[in-house]
Amino acid sequence: MWRGGAMARLVVAARAFSASASAGAGGVAMVQGASRGIGLEFVRQLLRRSDQGRVVATCRAPAAAAELHKLREEHAPGRLTVLPLDVTDEATIEAAAASIAETHGSLDLLINSTGILSIPNVIQPETTLGKVQKPSLLLAYEVNAVGPILVIKVKFTGSLLFLFPVVLVGGHSETGRGFSLVANMSARVSSIGDNGLGGWHSYRASKTALNQLTKTVSVELGRKDNIACILLHPGTVDTDLSRPFQRNVPKDKLFTREFSVQKLLSIIDNVKKSDNGKFFAWDGQEIPW
Amino acid sequence: MWRGGAMARLVVAARAFSASASAGAGGVAMVQGASRGIGLEFVRQLLRRSDQGRVVATCRAPAAAAELHKLREEHAPGRLTVLPLDVTDEATIEAAAASIAETHGSLDLLINSTGILSIPNVIQPETTLGKVQKPSLLLAYEVNAVGPILVIKVKFTGSLLFLFPVVLVGGHSETGRGFSLVANMSARVSSIGDNGLGGWHSYRASKTALNQLTKTVSVELGRKDNIACILLHPGTVDTDLSRPFQRNVPKDKLFTREFSVQKLLSIIDNVKKSDNGKFFAWDGQEIPW
Ligand SMILES: NC(=O)c1ccc[n+]([C@@H]2O[C@H](COP(=O)([O-])OP(=O)(O)OC[C@H]3O[C@@H](n4cnc5c(N)ncnc54)[C@H](OP(=O)(O)O)[C@@H]3O)[C@@H](O)[C@H]2O)c1
Ligand SMILES: NC(=O)c1ccc[n+]([C@@H]2O[C@H](COP(=O)([O-])OP(=O)(O)OC[C@H]3O[C@@H](n4cnc5c(N)ncnc54)[C@H](OP(=O)(O)O)[C@@H]3O)[C@@H](O)[C@H]2O)c1
Repeated sequence: MWRGGAMARLVVAARAFSASASAGAGGVAMVQGASRGIGLEFVRQLLRRSDQGRVVATCRAPAAAAELHKLREEHAPGRLTVLPLDVTDEATIEAAAASIAETHGSLDLLINSTGILSIPNVIQPETTLGKVQKPSLLLAYEVNAVGPILVIKVKFTGSLLFLFPVVLVGGHSETGRGFSLVANMSARVSSIGDNGLGGWHSYRASKTALNQLTKTVSVELGRKDNIACILLHPGTVDTDLSRPFQRNVPKDKLFTREFSVQKLLSIIDNVKKSDNGKFFAWDGQEIPW
Repeated sequence: MWRGGAMARLVVAARAFSASASAGAGGVAMVQGASRGIGLEFVRQLLRRSDQGRVVATCRAPAAAAELHKLREEHAPGRLTVLPLDVTDEATIEAAAASIAETHGSLDLLINSTGILSIPNVIQPETTLGKVQKPSLLLAYEVNAVGPILVIKVKFTGSLLFLFPVVLVGGHSETGRGFSLVANMSARVSSIGDNGLGGWHSYRASKTALNQLTKTVSVELGRKDNIACILLHPGTVDTDLSRPFQRNVPKDKLFTREFSVQKLLSIIDNVKKSDNGKFFAWDGQEIPW
């Protein structure tokens, strides 16, 4: 779609983002990893909170994302766009970014919610060193750490060697925040300082690396661009991801998706530029590295 | 070599490690990543400090490791064993462990020194997000984070379902330390809290993940076995790894290999069981995560 006539469209998109004119009141948010769980709930609440903000929801298999299509139909035309994006496939990241550039010009908010912990017959959280397997370490890293960074990184080179950092620069003037925000979903178990239990090697290490990558990117973007990056821990939330491990979670410590995302959105709403590079739990407390 | 008659040899080795009898005064140390740089200097100093301790030096290409062969000839027979080990090739890790089990029974000290930062035409430390490439992120992770963990993990299943954690359990009684020690070479730039400069995404994230993996393993081994794991930052040391980046290092901040390894060995000598899971700089100061 963006290959044919891409040049003209990039120019349009470039104009749009410099003027932030196309963003519309409420701004444009992208939720990456939106088919299920916390990502889907972010989409739901972002759409519900105003009647103007627009949302781009990405997922691996849009055709199968019935909940997203239902949400799209429940809201005014154009408020929700659903695009394919698999963080392990850079071509899909580039195509999604191109489509966003064309339609929205730029983003005010990017939430990377994608994450894997266990997939039957593929990856299981390790209970002991003896169960650590190289393919699991690499897969968790590719999806949980590398994936979100490739999404943040995506740029295009337009016709006139014009670098176009579509996903991040722009429409913040529409939100009142004054800067664009990247929120990457981490997890408390990524904290090295807080690791008293051991286990879950692949998941822990991948999320710890995500913390470091996000911090590294935040230093650069915070210096050069009007962008802040934060890391979030949602609490233990009732989703497919936590389901196999909920047995030992006290009832009042297992959050609904609604509650967790409400808390996380209030952090996102209140974030200051000086919070760039920080790691917040659902209750606003900073988590030690 | 360990395939034929492996069963009988494993039984011999198992006896050896339970009695710690074969270790010899001074114990047995393994230096993984010993062909050059800091690893090679560890081998040199470990051999020089007593006339009894034994050293297993592993590297990818023993045939090309002239310095190691010179050291072997300079010392009494049997004091230095050189074995092939490439951390990206699990078969070589298993073969090295089997050989160590056979010859030494067990290890008192394992130093994982392997690390990559830049390899011409393969991987370069990134100066900006735009230069981050997925293959570099994955390669640095595989070598710097996954590699050392696979070396720590290696076990064999002997004939009678006998689990044999050869690399770690054993001969500490010969060193006076009272426990076996794993020392993984990290780097100050792995610290998220200390990351004020950004850049070097692949290297930083891989070493941060190594920190988390080492901490995770330390929790388990510290609980079940008589083993401690620590992380070390050697300072900025004059080796092939730092050479392309030495221009901006003040002269007095660029350490010789001799100085750095002397400092690191004094940390290793004085480590207490309660230091399990900690991250020390060359001067003994703890580095924040
Ligand atoms: N739930 C918790 O208790 C908890 C706690 C701490 C942190 N977190 C973090 O919060 C985030 C959301 O978790 P969740 O509980 O909502 O998990 P979830 O219900 O399992 O959802 C995971 C999402 O990630 C997507 N995904 C997986 N692989 C992907 C890929 N290669 N490319 C793109 N998307 C991919 C899934 O898409 P498909 O439908 O296509 O598989 C799904 O939308 C994760 O980063 C998780 O680590 C969750
Ligand atoms: N030098 C510094 O200023 C500095 C600062 C902070 C941390 N460190 C860390 O200290 C450690 C030692 O660094 P160095 O300065 O001694 O580096 P170096 O001189 O470049 O030596 C690196 C070593 O790693 C080995 N290696 C690379 N890939 C390997 C693989 N796949 N399997 C097994 N071995 C492999 C190399 O073997 P080959 O000869 O086969 O390539 C070589 O022996 C590294 O972990 C590094 O990250 C160094």
